[in-house]
Order: sequence, then structure tokens, then C-alpha cells
Amino acid sequence: MQGLQALLDDVWAELQGRDERGEVATYIPELAKIDRGKFGIAVATPEGDTFCAGDADEAFSIQSISKVFVLTLALGRLGDTLWQRVGREPSGTAFNSIVQLEHERGIPRNPFINAGAIVATDVVLAGHEPREAIGEILRFAQFVADDDSIRIDPDVARSESDTGFRNRALANYMSAFGNLKHPVEKVLGVYFHQCAIAMSCRQLARAGLFLATGGCMPITGQNVISSRRARRINALMLTCGHYDGSGDFAFRVGLPGKSGVGGGILAIAPGKASIAVWSPGLNANGNSMLGSLALEGIAQRAGWSVFGP
Amino acid sequence: MQGLQALLDDVWAELQGRDERGEVATYIPELAKIDRGKFGIAVATPEGDTFCAGDADEAFSIQSISKVFVLTLALGRLGDTLWQRVGREPSGTAFNSIVQLEHERGIPRNPFINAGAIVATDVVLAGHEPREAIGEILRFAQFVADDDSIRIDPDVARSESDTGFRNRALANYMSAFGNLKHPVEKVLGVYFHQCAIAMSCRQLARAGLFLATGGCMPITGQNVISSRRARRINALMLTCGHYDGSGDFAFRVGLPGKSGVGGGILAIAPGKASIAVWSPGLNANGNSMLGSLALEGIAQRAGWSVFGP
Amino acid sequence: MQGLQALLDDVWAELQGRDERGEVATYIPELAKIDRGKFGIAVATPEGDTFCAGDADEAFSIQSISKVFVLTLALGRLGDTLWQRVGREPSGTAFNSIVQLEHERGIPRNPFINAGAIVATDVVLAGHEPREAIGEILRFAQFVADDDSIRIDPDVARSESDTGFRNRALANYMSAFGNLKHPVEKVLGVYFHQCAIAMSCRQLARAGLFLATGGCMPITGQNVISSRRARRINALMLTCGHYDGSGDFAFRVGLPGKSGVGGGILAIAPGKASIAVWSPGLNANGNSMLGSLALEGIAQRAGWSVFGP
Amino acid sequence: MQGLQALLDDVWAELQGRDERGEVATYIPELAKIDRGKFGIAVATPEGDTFCAGDADEAFSIQSISKVFVLTLALGRLGDTLWQRVGREPSGTAFNSIVQLEHERGIPRNPFINAGAIVATDVVLAGHEPREAIGEILRFAQFVADDDSIRIDPDVARSESDTGFRNRALANYMSAFGNLKHPVEKVLGVYFHQCAIAMSCRQLARAGLFLATGGCMPITGQNVISSRRARRINALMLTCGHYDGSGDFAFRVGLPGKSGVGGGILAIAPGKASIAVWSPGLNANGNSMLGSLALEGIAQRAGWSVFGP
Repeated sequence: MQGLQALLDDVWAELQGRDERGEVATYIPELAKIDRGKFGIAVATPEGDTFCAGDADEAFSIQSISKVFVLTLALGRLGDTLWQRVGREPSGTAFNSIVQLEHERGIPRNPFINAGAIVATDVVLAGHEPREAIGEILRFAQFVADDDSIRIDPDVARSESDTGFRNRALANYMSAFGNLKHPVEKVLGVYFHQCAIAMSCRQLARAGLFLATGGCMPITGQNVISSRRARRINALMLTCGHYDGSGDFAFRVGLPGKSGVGGGILAIAPGKASIAVWSPGLNANGNSMLGSLALEGIAQRAGWSVFGP
Repeated sequence: MQGLQALLDDVWAELQGRDERGEVATYIPELAKIDRGKFGIAVATPEGDTFCAGDADEAFSIQSISKVFVLTLALGRLGDTLWQRVGREPSGTAFNSIVQLEHERGIPRNPFINAGAIVATDVVLAGHEPREAIGEILRFAQFVADDDSIRIDPDVARSESDTGFRNRALANYMSAFGNLKHPVEKVLGVYFHQCAIAMSCRQLARAGLFLATGGCMPITGQNVISSRRARRINALMLTCGHYDGSGDFAFRVGLPGKSGVGGGILAIAPGKASIAVWSPGLNANGNSMLGSLALEGIAQRAGWSVFGP
Repeated sequence: MQGLQALLDDVWAELQGRDERGEVATYIPELAKIDRGKFGIAVATPEGDTFCAGDADEAFSIQSISKVFVLTLALGRLGDTLWQRVGREPSGTAFNSIVQLEHERGIPRNPFINAGAIVATDVVLAGHEPREAIGEILRFAQFVADDDSIRIDPDVARSESDTGFRNRALANYMSAFGNLKHPVEKVLGVYFHQCAIAMSCRQLARAGLFLATGGCMPITGQNVISSRRARRINALMLTCGHYDGSGDFAFRVGLPGKSGVGGGILAIAPGKASIAVWSPGLNANGNSMLGSLALEGIAQRAGWSVFGP
Repeated sequence: MQGLQALLDDVWAELQGRDERGEVATYIPELAKIDRGKFGIAVATPEGDTFCAGDADEAFSIQSISKVFVLTLALGRLGDTLWQRVGREPSGTAFNSIVQLEHERGIPRNPFINAGAIVATDVVLAGHEPREAIGEILRFAQFVADDDSIRIDPDVARSESDTGFRNRALANYMSAFGNLKHPVEKVLGVYFHQCAIAMSCRQLARAGLFLATGGCMPITGQNVISSRRARRINALMLTCGHYDGSGDFAFRVGLPGKSGVGGGILAIAPGKASIAVWSPGLNANGNSMLGSLALEGIAQRAGWSVFGP
């Protein structure tokens, strides 16, 4: 195998010139105005190294990737009783679908669709004011990334709130079934802020490393979660991390991953690396088009698929 | 780690006494009359060893596990053009659901639900009479298991046909969309026979080994499929192999697997082993209850989860 | 009010020149080749008169209008116990939808969607061979039309059978739930023939008259069904007679009606008249475009809406 | 035919002793505490008479019956352009279902399910503050009933708001598709108040009379709406007035009607009468059990079915 840096440089160079990059999300102006030419890659390894290519140090809106951090916090609060309020099965429908919720009486299919992440946010909110819960989530992202400079973009948070009718519908619907314990607006106040966390590929790759190492932060040696919980979060990322494109991502890339509508994807190669990619253009499933291709290339060249040699 | 034989003996002994074993499938008499006390385990390794516990040498009806073999054959025929006729996403609904087919115009969600497997059967049937296609499928199972004694149970095949109204509905529905190329009764004639293949855990574990070894049969050195195709079939087994319980299986066991209503499960630990378990009692998702627990125990003790240490 | 003949002439003349006439059904060649310029109207009154305009004496394929006759026969066989096997609610989905069947465990929503009519056919088949049941249905149409020249078109019946994959799917699906008592192919053999009955507007208007007169054939004085049953069949025609366009038809026309994909519609003005229209072009809901407009015009000018003056 | 008063007395007396009366709605305390022994009937005729039986002068919460008045007002505002924002087809699913909304991109199926009525309320709100719109709706009910004593129950309105999560979900969902023009809380503020209008059977029967008389108030001679619009509102009540029990109501009673969860039903016999019944116990479809039976008895004895003699 060639060196990791050379591998990233190759993958980046091959894809950088590509014209077909999908469409940038436009539902809020803050995302719509992002330059679709951006393209960054970062890989963090258990040895403590981080390798980068392209726009790997420019912060972007991590959006749904934040669901991984909030799930980790919610599991820390409730443990396995969380699974009484949210399922662990792929959704099989569009990411903001409300149909499943009706069929399953207010229990979202998994914690990586919006409804499920809103339940996880409701769990993190327990005993807190929204401001405090937002702070806790941000500090957790800073902690696992080992980087205090990570911030929330207030304009993105405000725009999310202004356009968040579907999320309000989901939250009210779950409240009708008793599956939210706090007022809808408080829960969504936190939710809209966690989606607005801004991180660079470098920060994000480092932040995901604990999932590749059995729950440990390799440099500091601090334990974030048990190895069993790390495996289980990875399993959920693999089966549910890409909305209705999860099966395709597993088929092509072969790694647990979680995408965001801002064009970022975090992927985990257990025991090997944490990988973050970013390119704002999205494919038909709402996942970064260039990012998916980059992960496919990296996983294949590095031999990192969890599904075999 | 203890030796594999001791590990299997431990897992078998722990579970063997368990009363709660789920319900045996009753839709055909041949399955209904199976002794629910049966419980077998077999593990085949790339080194050529096979370790067994319990009723590992008693043949059972592999039912939907045959979908793995038929998919392999269909991919051999069509390659990636198969994916124009069947999807690669988890189904999110019951295994014989017809709703998804209506929504997606006759394209089944994946090759491991009945509708998708019927399409794969239609592909294998091309250029053949049903009798020949049945023979080809059986010979493939014998070949990968390296065991010519494997047989189809004609009583099971006949009962499947007698009660197969839902499968006839699925097949006719796909024909209405032009997604079957042969007459419904010919395709189902093959399909009902492949479901009736009878194998023991020992045979089944050996037959799955090529998926754990990058497509090779380790003893003979024969290449069955490319390593890339082996990875991809594993990916599909992980995301889609257990109907609406696929997410839960990935969460608990952490291995690609395919279950059958006869109580068998084939699981793949890439690079490590092929595992077959059998116990006829099924859980609410239609997967072997004891078999799932056995795989969870084996994967955990052996450290075989694909999702990390 | 002008005389009925003058009223029909006016409505026919106003619509005859219209270019926009919708699309002719093309799923079988016998329907596809019908001249879309055809347009006939006939009105039969309790006094025994029949008024006609346009192509009122040319026979066309009545298709789903036959569901009215078969329902009448099935109610004659089973009485209200029929309603244990078929519902009485509008379907809310496309006419050959299978989704509802899954949700409601093999019980079709109403007797005017294909699945419900197949159940009614199964009831009529009891104690008969298919050939006899076909004869009974045809004789009933001849009897209520008081016209022995009515025939079944064997080419249409054969084509229906050749392309009837969705109906086979529906029938097998209901068999899976035990809601058909005879073999699928026997039931469908009858069903495809009843759809192929050919009648002219004049014949059809006369055949529907018993529903406008409380169950009596006014000329002969023979009683076909009770007045209560006539009212109830009319109610079903109003709420369910036009697939997912039933609400719109009630809103615009204000009369019970049943349409067929051959371009015919039978409408009942209780106490006033039985009306048959035919024009092969269909609107988006699969109902005759010109026929619907003609009925709207006739009902409005004659003041025949059941919903008020 | 016996006199109307005697007919009502008979129907009332026959049903009054009945034990099986269904379940009283319990989702808000104001409805839960209503005496389920209550049972009133009132019939208003075009001649200006009102006949009553039982608890016909006790006010009850009309709930969804208010949808008839609000639809009439919304049509007065927008005319037929209203139908670009709400459909005219039976819903085929539970009354607060959100599934259909997703499938049909924010356009409710008809104005008599909650989502459709919320759109109608949004139309009435145009150019007003919520307080003014509430006043306009109340004054319209007083006007058509010719009774200024009709009031809104503020406790019911408050409870509706406190428990209205599903309606908030529906409203936010439609806002996501751009089908509400005002803020969700303003629209729902009006909606919750209109549901809380309290009327007696006598008041309600009189208030519905304009729908039986081609749009006129027969005593004062004032025109409320055109006869065409009256017919069309009646058509909608017949096909959509009872949620998923609309087909059954048309089958049994044969009259346009609108029910409310408070146990009231308004039914229209075009040209003959306006009928209001009230009994708080509900059947499985959420319609008054005794009220439905009373209407069936009245319609049959009086020969008022719109579907024939």
C-alpha cells in the first residue's frame, strides 16, 4: 500500500476536476451560498496522525453528522433504555418522512433520521435549559475533536428554525404519542443549534476517532465510551447513516458513515482510521456526491472495507 | 481467546437449556413438525477446519438462506446490470410486503426479500427449463459446500407451492411491470425448489466460506467470485439479510448474515470464519431466536464484529 | 324544463365538437383500436321511454360497469353476509392498488374496485363451473336490459386474461388471506369474461333502470331486488363508483354512477331515470371525459342531482 | 307517513333504552365528563317548523360539524379556487392521518378532515386577526341558526389547544409545503375556537336548513349561498362527512351528514329537512352511535334517502 498521504492526494486529484458534483442544498441561504467547488479530505489514525487533502481546514456546517455526537450523549444518559423510545432499523423512506411515525405510533425508526435525533436531543435536554444543553453538545464535539475552537453558526441555527416546519410537524407528532418529554420549541431550539455546528474535515476526522478505536481517544488515552458501545454506534451508522441510500453506501464504500446535508460525511474504518470528507454537491439521496466517491476510493485503495479483503 | 471448539461448546451449553425459543414456522406441515429442541452450530475457517456443536450434522430446510446462493449465480449471469431490476436498500417492511413494489413500480428493494429473490431466480432461469435451473442452483450449493450429498426436499417444495399465494401475488405484480422475463409459474417452480434445499450446519458453514475469504474456496484454491463481489454480497447481507430485523442483527451481532424461516442463519466474519447456526424457533422478526443469540455470543467472545475491537 | 330528447340533443351537440377528450385505454388492443370520436347517450325513464343521442346503439365493452350487475347477483346469493368479505368504504387509492389489501388483511375496501369485484365473482361462482357462472352473469344483464342480444366479446376476454397480471396478484393476495373460496384461475376466468360484456348505451340505460325505480323493472313489473337494496347499491355507486374520482363525480354530477375503462358510465337518478353515456377517451382518474361532462350537463339541466334543487 | 313529531318520538323511544352506546371521547376533560345518557333529536323543515325529541335544547360541543360552516365561509371568500388548496375525495384513512398529506404534498384530501378544515380556517383568517375571524365564524353560525345566543365554550377551546399536538403536526406539515398563509399558531387559535362552538340540536337543525333548501333561509327568505353550492356542499358531506365511516353512513342512512367527536351529527335531506342528533357515545369510526342509528331510523321511516324510494 502506498502511504496514506499519497493515497489521499491521488483520490483528491482524481475527483477534483469532476464536473458532475450534484446540487448544493438550498433550503436555507447559508447552505445555498457555499461554493460547490469546495472539496476536502482528512484521515485521522489511531497513531495520532492526521492526513489531509484539499479544503480540509475550512469549517462547514456538519448538519446531520451531529446526530452521531448527540446519540453518544443520549446513550450516556439513558443507556439501553433509549431504545424504548427510538428504533434501530433502517428507515426505508425519505429522511423527513412522517409516515413511519404514524405506523409505529411515534417511535422513530432509528436515531439518524430527523425524528430519532429529535428524541435523542430531548434526552440530552433532561434537567437542562436549552442553552445549557446546546453548550453540552458543543463541548462534547470540542472534547472528542480535542479542539476548543469549534463553534456553532448562529445564522444557520436561525435559518434552520425559520424553515423548520417539517421538524416541527415531526416533533408535535411525537408529542402526540408522548415520546417527547419537553416542550416542542425547547427541544427544537437545541436541535436546530446542534445542526449548525461548524467543523473542518480535520476537526471532524479527529472527533470521530473514538469510534474507530473501541471508544478511546488514542492520544490522551481518555475513554469516551465502551468498545461495545462504539461497535454498536458503528453498526447503526452502517445500516442507517445515509437515509434511503444506506444500503448503497454500504455496498459501495463498505464503512460505517454518517452524512450531512451540508456535504460532509464522517466514515469509520474500525481499528484503522476516522475519515471526514466534504463537498457541498449532493446526490439524489441527499449525500455528498464527491464525498461518497472519495470514500469509495479511499476504502478500496486502503483495503479498509469492513466486509473483507 | 479460548480455542474455537471450546468457545462453541460454551455458547451451545449456555443456550441449550433455554426455554424461550420462539415459535416454529407453521405455514407448511414439513416445517411445523420439526422438533423445536434442535440446536446446532458450525464454524468453518479459512484454514480448512470446521468446528461443530449440537445438532450440526442434521439437515434442515435452508429456505431464504438459498437467496445468497441464487444472488451469487444471478450476479455471475448479469453482473451489475442486475441492479437495474432489483435495489440494494433495506426494505423497512415485512418480508413478503407488496406495498414497496407498488411504490417503486415493480423493482424490489433488495435481493434478500422474496420479491427480489424471485427476480434473481428469473435471471438464473434464462436459457433453461425450470428443471435445469433447479439443478444448477443445487449443484452450486454442492460445489461451494464441497459436498455432493446435499439434496432438495420434494415435500417441502410441494408444500411451498401449495401455499405460495403471496409469492404468486408478488410474481404477478412484478410481471405487470415487466420485471419478470419468464412465465410466473416457471419462475416460482424454481423458486419453491431452491427454498427446499436441505443442508446441515456443517455443510452450510462450509458453503459460506467463500464469502469470508474474498471469493476463494480456501481448501481447493478455486475462485468462486472476485473479492470485490464477495465484499458487496456481505454488505447486502448486513443491511438486508434479516428482513425488518436487519438493523437489530447488525447492532447485536455485528456480522453479515442471512436467515431462513426454517431456523437457520448463515453469518460471515470476513477473513475469520463462516458460521452456520440452526434452531427452529423464531423471534418476532422471523429469525431464529436461539440462532441469533448464539451468533451474538460467538461474535462477542471471538471478537469477530466487523464494527471494531 | 325542455323535453328530455331536446335536452339530450343539446348536451350531445355542445360536447360532440370538443377536441380534448382524454386518452383511450391501451392495455389491450381491443380497447386501443376503438375510435375515440364515438359518443353516445341514452336515458331510460320509469315510464318506459328511452331517449338517445349520438352513437347510442353501438355496443362497447362495459368493463367495470359489470361490477354493478355482479354485486347485485352476489348480494342475491349471500345477502348482508357479503359485507364480511368486502368493505363499503371509498378506496382512496388507485383502482388496482394492492396496498389497502395488505393493510386490511385481504378484505377489499368496496365491491367496485377490482379486488372487491373479484370477491363478488367468487361468490357468484359458488356451486358452478366457470362457464355456468359466466352464463348466469350474462343472462342477468340480458334480463335487466330486457334484451337477449347482449353478448360477451371473446377477444376482449382473452386479452384481459393475457394482460391480467395485476388482477392475478390481487386474487392470489386475497387467497393468501383465505378470502377466495375457489381457485384463482377459475375466479379470474369468470371475472375476465364479465368485463368483456358488450352493450350499447340504449341497452345499458335500460339495464340500470331497476336501480332508479326501487328495484322494479317498470315495464314488466318484475321485481329484481328490494327498494332498500336498490338504495344501498346506489349509495355504493355514489361513494365508490369512480375509483379515486368518486368524490369529484359526486361533486360535479351529483348522481350515483359506475364507470368502465371502455369509456362507458352508468348513472342513476333515483325515481327519475337511468342514464348511460359512452365516449372512449378517459380523464386522469380513468373515467370517460366526455361522458362525465355529459352527465354533469344532463343532471344540471334536468335538475336530477340527489343533493338538492 | 305518520306525523314527523310522532316519528321522532318513536325513534327516540326505541333507542333511548339501549345500553350499547359506544365510548365518550376522552381526549379533553370537557368532553369526557359529558353524561353519556344524553340523547336529543331535532328536525327543521323548509316550512319553518322544528320538531324535537329528548335533550334537543341542551347545548353540546359541535366540534367537527363546525367544518361545514367554515367551508361555507371559505368558499364565500375564494370560490372554486379553494379547490387548488384542498381536495374533494374521501380520505380512506383515520381522521387525523398525516400520511395522505405526505403523499399528496401538503394538499389535504377534503375539507372535512382536520387538515382540510385547517386550510379552510386559514382562508377565513385572511385579512383578520384571529379574534376577528373567530367572531366571524361564530356570527355565521348565529346567523344561519337565527339565534344570537350561540356561544363558544372557552374551556373546550383551551383544552383543544393544550392537547392539539396532532393538529400542530398537520399544520406545520402543510406550512412546509406552503399551503398555509398565516402562522401556524394563529390558524390553530381560530381552529380550536371553532371546534368549541356549543349548540343544541334545535339550533343546529335550524342552522343546517339552508343546505336543504337550495341555499335559502326559508323563514327570512335570505339567500346564504347559491343552490349549486348547496348541492356541492351536500355532496362533500355525503362522500367525506364521516371520516373512514363515510361509505357506511351513506349505505345505512342515505343522507349527506357531518359528525363531530362531541357526539353530534347534522344530516341534510335535500328539499325535505335538516336533522340534528346528539348522543355522546361514539362508534369505532368516531361517530355518534345512537345518533347514527336515529338518523337511519328517521331517514327510513320518512323515506328521505337521497338514493331512492
